[in-house]
Formats: sequence, structure tokens, C-alpha cells
Amino acid sequence: MITSAIYHRPDSEFAYLYKKDLMHIRIRTARGDIKQVNLLHGDSYSLHEEKFYQRPLAMTKYLSTDLYDYWVAETKEKYNRMSYAFEVIGFDGIRVLYGDHGVYPFEEEYLTMPNNYFKMPYFHEADRFKAPEWVKETVWYQIFPERFANGDPNNDPEGTLPWASKDPDRQDFFGGDLQGVIDHLDHLVDLGINGIYFCPIFKAHSNHKYDTIDYLEIDPAFGDKELFKQLVEECHKRGIKVMLDAVFNHLGDTSMQWQDVIKNGADSRYADWFHIHEFPVSYKEEEFEHASDITYDVFAFTPHMPKLNTANPEVKAHLLNIAKYWIEEFDIDAWRLDVANEVDHQFWKEFRKVCDETKKDFYILGEIWHSSQSWLQGDEFHAVMNYAYTDAIMEFFVKNKISMSKMISEINSQLMMYRQQTNETQFNVLDSHDTPRLLTEANGNKDLMKQVLAFTYMQPGVPCVYYGDEFSMTGGMDPDCRKCMDWEGDQEMFRYFQKLIHFRKNNHLVFSEGTMVWQKIVEEVGLLELERELAEKQIGGIFNTGDLPQQAALPENILLSNLTEELEGELLIKPNGFVIFEK
Amino acid sequence: MITSAIYHRPDSEFAYLYKKDLMHIRIRTARGDIKQVNLLHGDSYSLHEEKFYQRPLAMTKYLSTDLYDYWVAETKEKYNRMSYAFEVIGFDGIRVLYGDHGVYPFEEEYLTMPNNYFKMPYFHEADRFKAPEWVKETVWYQIFPERFANGDPNNDPEGTLPWASKDPDRQDFFGGDLQGVIDHLDHLVDLGINGIYFCPIFKAHSNHKYDTIDYLEIDPAFGDKELFKQLVEECHKRGIKVMLDAVFNHLGDTSMQWQDVIKNGADSRYADWFHIHEFPVSYKEEEFEHASDITYDVFAFTPHMPKLNTANPEVKAHLLNIAKYWIEEFDIDAWRLDVANEVDHQFWKEFRKVCDETKKDFYILGEIWHSSQSWLQGDEFHAVMNYAYTDAIMEFFVKNKISMSKMISEINSQLMMYRQQTNETQFNVLDSHDTPRLLTEANGNKDLMKQVLAFTYMQPGVPCVYYGDEFSMTGGMDPDCRKCMDWEGDQEMFRYFQKLIHFRKNNHLVFSEGTMVWQKIVEEVGLLELERELAEKQIGGIFNTGDLPQQAALPENILLSNLTEELEGELLIKPNGFVIFEK
Repeated sequence: MITSAIYHRPDSEFAYLYKKDLMHIRIRTARGDIKQVNLLHGDSYSLHEEKFYQRPLAMTKYLSTDLYDYWVAETKEKYNRMSYAFEVIGFDGIRVLYGDHGVYPFEEEYLTMPNNYFKMPYFHEADRFKAPEWVKETVWYQIFPERFANGDPNNDPEGTLPWASKDPDRQDFFGGDLQGVIDHLDHLVDLGINGIYFCPIFKAHSNHKYDTIDYLEIDPAFGDKELFKQLVEECHKRGIKVMLDAVFNHLGDTSMQWQDVIKNGADSRYADWFHIHEFPVSYKEEEFEHASDITYDVFAFTPHMPKLNTANPEVKAHLLNIAKYWIEEFDIDAWRLDVANEVDHQFWKEFRKVCDETKKDFYILGEIWHSSQSWLQGDEFHAVMNYAYTDAIMEFFVKNKISMSKMISEINSQLMMYRQQTNETQFNVLDSHDTPRLLTEANGNKDLMKQVLAFTYMQPGVPCVYYGDEFSMTGGMDPDCRKCMDWEGDQEMFRYFQKLIHFRKNNHLVFSEGTMVWQKIVEEVGLLELERELAEKQIGGIFNTGDLPQQAALPENILLSNLTEELEGELLIKPNGFVIFEK
Repeated sequence: MITSAIYHRPDSEFAYLYKKDLMHIRIRTARGDIKQVNLLHGDSYSLHEEKFYQRPLAMTKYLSTDLYDYWVAETKEKYNRMSYAFEVIGFDGIRVLYGDHGVYPFEEEYLTMPNNYFKMPYFHEADRFKAPEWVKETVWYQIFPERFANGDPNNDPEGTLPWASKDPDRQDFFGGDLQGVIDHLDHLVDLGINGIYFCPIFKAHSNHKYDTIDYLEIDPAFGDKELFKQLVEECHKRGIKVMLDAVFNHLGDTSMQWQDVIKNGADSRYADWFHIHEFPVSYKEEEFEHASDITYDVFAFTPHMPKLNTANPEVKAHLLNIAKYWIEEFDIDAWRLDVANEVDHQFWKEFRKVCDETKKDFYILGEIWHSSQSWLQGDEFHAVMNYAYTDAIMEFFVKNKISMSKMISEINSQLMMYRQQTNETQFNVLDSHDTPRLLTEANGNKDLMKQVLAFTYMQPGVPCVYYGDEFSMTGGMDPDCRKCMDWEGDQEMFRYFQKLIHFRKNNHLVFSEGTMVWQKIVEEVGLLELERELAEKQIGGIFNTGDLPQQAALPENILLSNLTEELEGELLIKPNGFVIFEK
């Protein structure tokens, strides 16, 4: 037995309250090494009286990665407090006790020592990770406002180019605005989405608006507050939630505060709003968004985005006031936090409190591309932009960079990195304003695009459509992925998205909360069958990622499919095809 | 190579800011499996430009447990942000890359993928675990007030027994009080301690006062607020810090609030102050501190200690006000939190803020007996009562229940469970009001007691003397360990404690911050040599835990010793003897 591979961490994603009073316990063992794990659990103060180590609860081997098997169990405790340890039985016949002080022989002597048990000392609802229910039923739509639609030419900035007159360069403007969004809300309703994630709309210099000048103003090229209020109201009327982008890691260098620092140096009343190592502030520009010898901390190497000192109480108060203002005055439903990983935890904990106090069921999404456990403990974000998860899907389905089993390993690994309720509201994107577009990555293969979308919409976590994907728009790395919306785009793809979104919303609970069952993995021919199960409901999906057609039993109740054909009572799934069905 | 045993977790005790801008990185591998681990680290935005994976930093194999080797490294980053991964080289010659997505072949293809790197996205001083410096130089002294000294017979409760007239039963009173402490402060100065940890002194029913009636009153049998103020002042005059016991998990059942619940049931305005499952509240008493069928949550099974609902904003405000009051009005230096693990994290985070805001360098110590990572992230406690650590010492030295190597494994395991700065201020007790006395556990062997004390005083974390141990007091499990102070006790032991405390205070920095070097472990004869090192300073300790005398080279600069003898230019260390010396 590889005892050194066994891992558990109390009060983490390995031991947490899933629902009120319902505890989830996980343990990790080396893949294929362990025959059975049993949970020994009971009241923390009753070990000797109850001898609960004599009542093992069989854990379920749930998900596996290339290196590990993960075992899970659910428990309730009469007094809402729990001591627990694990009986681990190897395929080699070895049986050990694994607890708070490591591995011991499975013997009475060690089983009766209270210290050998992990503790979840009391099940506190206050500490439980909770996300708003509405998120699970949401399909998001991401809008890059400068490129969605120009509804009001009067507010176009100087030098605005005619709509879609060229592929965008870094500093082009095309006149997109909030009126353009209002004008096209019915398009979104028609599409079926019920949440909009807006890239920044506050006053800023650039076309992407990530270099904020004033967080309390709508960018004049986009509209004004009255118009934004109207936009939120129109969205809410249509059952569409509104998420804004909060860029709290840094300011734009044309902001009043940074300009004051430039002017007054160390004497500026904003000098401590930033992380400045030397006055006067300076840098050597190499290209527009890259400099060297910058004398202050910035986002990446962009001198135009000086990093904010979010530990400064004045900055904190300023930003928290902004967080509150847009919720209170405009009734927004969610904040998406830009570069969230580079801002301190203490700030985000206060941010979370402000949001929770201001609006019930508010959703907070952090931009983090790597493992994010420490932001997802329940008192900061509800979710992160789940690139780590969807990357695995992209790399297998679209980029052919990893094998099917590696993708599954990655997906399982990501799912075991967070509490189940976190997975349920993660934000799954296949593309965004920060990546090439999906169809471009798919080399224009629309069937492949449909396939990978269908697979992604079956995952836990909520999907997001990047504006224009529904019209088969293309585009490479930013700024190319930020082209003007092609309102005359691919109608056939639009209809596919309609079906896809409808399918997801109709079955959202099984996709959010259901178990993952990797039903069939036939790597040689590229055949993959995933099943999601919740109570009596079972939805299966069969995906042909290989080069040859594959046959499958003909499902009775097909929910969504592409490139399939009935053939002699069976279903033929062509390459890039798939079928999703209810069992 | 046992790749499945490799473990690292960013933003945890495996990756943290130790001092400003100084990052500590740790990784765990299977014991004896890995020849070398190298850290590949650099700026998060410069992987491709800097190719920092070509500049491996050798990590040091630091501490080992029965199952693992832990490797450590220190780094600084120019821009205070870091991407990092590990080059792991097995004794079998296998070389892998271990990063944010697990284990990969050590090849350019994988080394150049940014996602394969863990991230410490920005080094935030606000998120750094910080404990007050003064704690490191402190030797605590624990007083159980009812049994320390009776300075004022006028406040003795009815039925008070003559001092030390019998061994204590659960409900005896002997008249100890605050005046008694004031009267004996010079004893404590003479002993050398510089911090007092008081068991509860607030108004309560029992002799131990863990069943609080009123947190805003001193128990009348102990004195009053004026007297307590005087006590704190007298302590501070003598350079002694004062720590009070905050029992915030539960109230006493004779408190006004619980009495109101008994009287008014569900209509009580305090009904939601507790966790009540059924009105009227009731229980079946089995013995004084144990009942069954309790209709409300309690501490353990003690119906007299109803658990407080610390998520109720009113309760929270009430308790936080108390936390603040005793700091603000009486200038106390620390809170010790009773049953800290059963109170919710959200409460403790607010508690921490209140304390930090009220007094600079305030110390917070939680009572937790098991692994405590989630309370020691930097925004709740500074330390826990480190039973998990000292238990290992007791079980080897005193109880002979584990081997020397198992003790070392446990110590190392505990040290790797927390950040270094956490280890530095942990609270190390060999006995307390909740355990048998040390001398009793040692079967009256005073030399063994001296030996285990010396070993413990060499550890990271600060020691605490349980009142009366300095006079060789004895006593079994509570209430026997709470005997009246024997003011006529063992003067020889008292002098030993004086030397021990002096020795610790003189060398506190090397014991707090120094590295652990297990210099020599000769299990067969019970010989153990531990060295602590900080910069140029090295302090060694040789302990003979066997049955035969052992010889060692005669140290030049002996700091503390017992049962040693110079013999032909060498040092003879008798069984239970030890020598500690500066190199």
C-alpha cells in the first residue's frame, strides 16, 4: 500500500458542509492502490461510549485522476460535531487507520485514542460555502461593450471607425455602447441566455476600459447612468441578470489619483494609494502595454495600469463604496473581479461582506486562472473563471494536445479541488475577450465547435457564451477576438445555440448537482460517454472524437445531437458528432 | 519514484510570506524516495522572456516524518509575484516537473506552459501571518485562580474549605482570589516568568468559572474590577503580560440569558442566543457534568453550559464588546479562547479584527487539541494550545508509549503543518488544568521531569509553567490537578525552574526562529541530540533517555544540565540526565 499518497485535510474541500447539517468527506489515495476506504465517524465526545470505530461507513470510489482515486461519503451527526478517521484497505491486503496523526496499524489500541481522529468540531452554517441558487439556472452571455452594437452614434469617441470596417487593432474604437445592448436585448432573449457579463463600462481611456479613470461614472462613449439604469431594468424585466466587471487591482494612469501622483510625487495625497518604490514615478516604454524599469507596481508590465494598494484603508473604503454603489443604485446582480488573484484576501473578505449586506443572493466571480482554493473557502468568491477546467476540455477536443484520459484526469482533479457546491456555480468559458475565439481554435470546424460546446454544457458549473460565437464569429488572440459583432452572422449556428441553451436550462439541476459518471472511455476510437445523475434523473452524452463513425444504441429520448443518423435501429455518430439523451 | 506522494498547496503552510517580501516554499515527498528537489521560480509575467525554469534553485531537505521528507526554500521576487514549479529527481533517476496541474515529464514542452506553474500572485503584507514579537520572549505561567492563593478571606464563598485541607472534588471551594495573586507577584518575578495566563475570572457558578454568568463582572469570590485593574498594573510594572480566558463557546446555565430561556421558552428574547431544538429546554441528568436527551446544544454533554449561537448578530455584538472592554479598560495583553474550535470562523475573524484595532501587538491563543491549520491562516489566532506537539514529547519521554523516532516524526509533522512564524509563537504546555500534572505523569521522577522540561524549552513555541509545578506539586486528571498551591513546596525544583526559565529567555530567539537539527538519534541506547541554529548561534542539547549512562564530548559552554558528571575530560550523562550547551 502506498500510504504516503493518502491525503485528507479537515475543514477544506476534503471535509465541508454541503447542505445544512450534511457533511461531505473526501479522501485521496494512490490510483488503483486501495480496495476500500471506510469512514469511522461519530460524536467528538462519545468515542469511548459509542465505539463508533466498530461501525464503518463504506466510502464510494468516485473520481480518479492519473495519480489518484478520490473516495467520498456523506454524513450527518446528531449533535452536529464529528470525530472521524479512515479505515484504508489496500489491494495488497494491508489495513491501516489513517487519522489526524497519520497512519497506524488498524488495532484497538490506536482506534481508541481520541487524538487519532480528525475533527469537524461543530457544523456551522455561518462557515458553510453558499452560492446563490439562481446561478445554477443561468446561461451567461459576455459582452465587450465597445464591439457589441453601436446604438447611439452621438456618443462615439473621436476617430471612431465605421462598424466592422477592419479587424481591430489595440487602440481602435468602433462605437459600441449601452444603447446598442438595449437595442439588441430581444436578440439575447431569443437566444435564450439569462445573464449578461459586461466587460468594464466605467470611465476609462482604452477601448477595453480595464484602465479605469472613474469607477463612479459610466464611460461617456458608452452612455450615462440613466441609460445604464434603464438597461438593468430592461434586463430584469426579461429575467436577465446583470454582472459588471470590477477592476480593483489597478487604476488607469489617466485617473485623477495617478495624475496627482505624477504631479506631486511623494507629496501627493494619493502617494500611498499605490505601491511606489521611487519618486518621481517613471518607466521606459517598450511597447504600448509593456515597459521596463517601472518604479511602481503595475498590472503585468503595463505602465498605464498602476496597481492599487488595497490594504490602505482609504483605498479600501473608496473601492468598497463603489462595490456597494452599483448594487444599491442600479440593482446589479453580480460582480466579476478582474485580476482577482493579485488583490489581498483581507480586501476580498470585506468586499464579500459589503455585497452580502447590500443584496441578497449576490454573486461574486473572480478572475483566476490557476488553482483557487484559498479564494473559494466561502467568505470571498462564489466562483472563479474556470479556465483550468475548460482548458482541459479545449486541449483534448479542440487542440488535440492531450489524450482523452488526461482530459478526464484533469476534469476530475479540478472537481476534487473544490467543494461540490463551488463546482456547481463555477464559471465555464471556452473563450473570452482574453483568448482566441472557439471557432478559430477549432480551425473553422463548426461541428467540432458544436460538439465541445455540448460537452461543456453538460458539466457542473455554468456556461457563458462569448458575444458573436452564436454567429460563428472568428478571431485570434486579443485584440483579434474583440471584433465588431457580425449581426448578419451564421443563422444556423444561432439556432444551434438556441437549442443548446434551452437544453442546458431545462436540465440545469442535474448538470449542476448531479454526479459525474464516466460511463465509457474508448480511447483508441475516440468514443466518450459521460453520464450525469441526480436522484432518478440520468442524462447521458456520447461523443465521437475519432475519425471514424461509431455506433451506439438508439436512445429513446434524444435531447440534443449533431452528426448522427439512425441506421438499422442503431445510432450512427459521425466524427465530431454527439448525442445527448435522457435515460 | 512515488509521484503520488508529492504534495504542495499554494497559499498555505506550503507557500507563505515569512517576513516582508520573503517567501517560504515547502514541498512534501515520500520519505527516502527523492534525491533532490529544485524550485523553478520567477515573475508570473516573464516565463517566456526569463525562461526561469533554466535556473533551478536547490531546495533543502529539512525535516522528515515516518512517511515524508519535507523540502524547503526561501525566495524573494523583484516584483513581489511568483510563478513556480518543482523539478523532482528520484533516487531511481526519474526526473519530473511537478506544478499546478500535477506531474509531467521534465521537458521543454511542459516547462514552457504557464499553467504548469503554481502562483503566489502577489505578496501581500496584509495577508501575511504576523504574531507579536513579545510572545517569543515570553515564558507563561498558568494560574487557576481558585487554587493559587487566598489573599482575602472576606470574599470567600459560603462553604469555603480551609486551604489545602483536602484533595479537591468537583464542587469544592478553597478561597483563592486575585488578591492572592497580587500578594505573590514577587514569587513569579523571582521565578522569572513574564506572562500570566489566568483561567476564567468572570462571574460564574463553579470553581473553574468556565460556566460564565456575566462576562462583564469579576467573580465576587475573586475580587472586583478595581482589584483586577491593580493586578494588571502590578503585572505590567514587573514586565509581566496578562492573558485572560474567554469562554465564548457557551454560557453558564445560571446566566440571566439562559434563565430567561428557561422561564420564557420560545418567547424569550434570548431564544436565538442558543441552539435550541425543542422548548421547553430539558435534559436528563446522569451526573453533574453529563446528561442525556438535552434539547439544546451544549459543551460536551454538560447541560450547565448551553452553547452560544455566535452567528446571531446580537450575540456577536455582545461578545465582541466584551473582547474589547477588557482590553480597553484593563489593558490586558492576550485572550485565550476556550473550546475555540467549536465556534465559527466568521466570529473569530471579527474577533481578531476587534482585538487588533483595540491594542497593538495583542496575542490570541485558541484552545484546539487537533490539527488547526484553518484557524491559523493569519486572520484568526496567533497560536493554539499546542497539545498535539507536546503530546508527542510526553508520550516518548514520560509515558514511554512511542519510540524516539516516532516522537521526532510527530514533532516534524507538526512543525510542517504550520507556517514557521506560527510555530514560533505556539503555546507549549506539558500539563494544564485539563491534564494530569507532569510530575504525576512522570511517576514522581523529578529528574525525568527536569529532562522533559529542558527538551520542551528548546522547542519552537513558548513554554508555560502550570502553577505549582515549580514546587513539585502532583495531581491526576481534573479535578485532582487543581489542588491548592503548596507554598511550602519543593525549593530545589523551584531553583531548577528559575534556571530553566532564565535559560529560555536568554536564548529565546534561537529557540523561536532557529532551524531544527536532529543531530544524533541513537534509539537503542536512548541518546538524542537536538541542535537549534540561528545565524551564527548554535545551541545543542543531549538527552539520555535510556537506562545506562552515556558519554559525550565535554562542552565548553554549558547552559543547563542535570545528572551529568565530568569524567576523564568527557561528560557522563546519567539516565534521565541532559546537557544543553552553546557551540
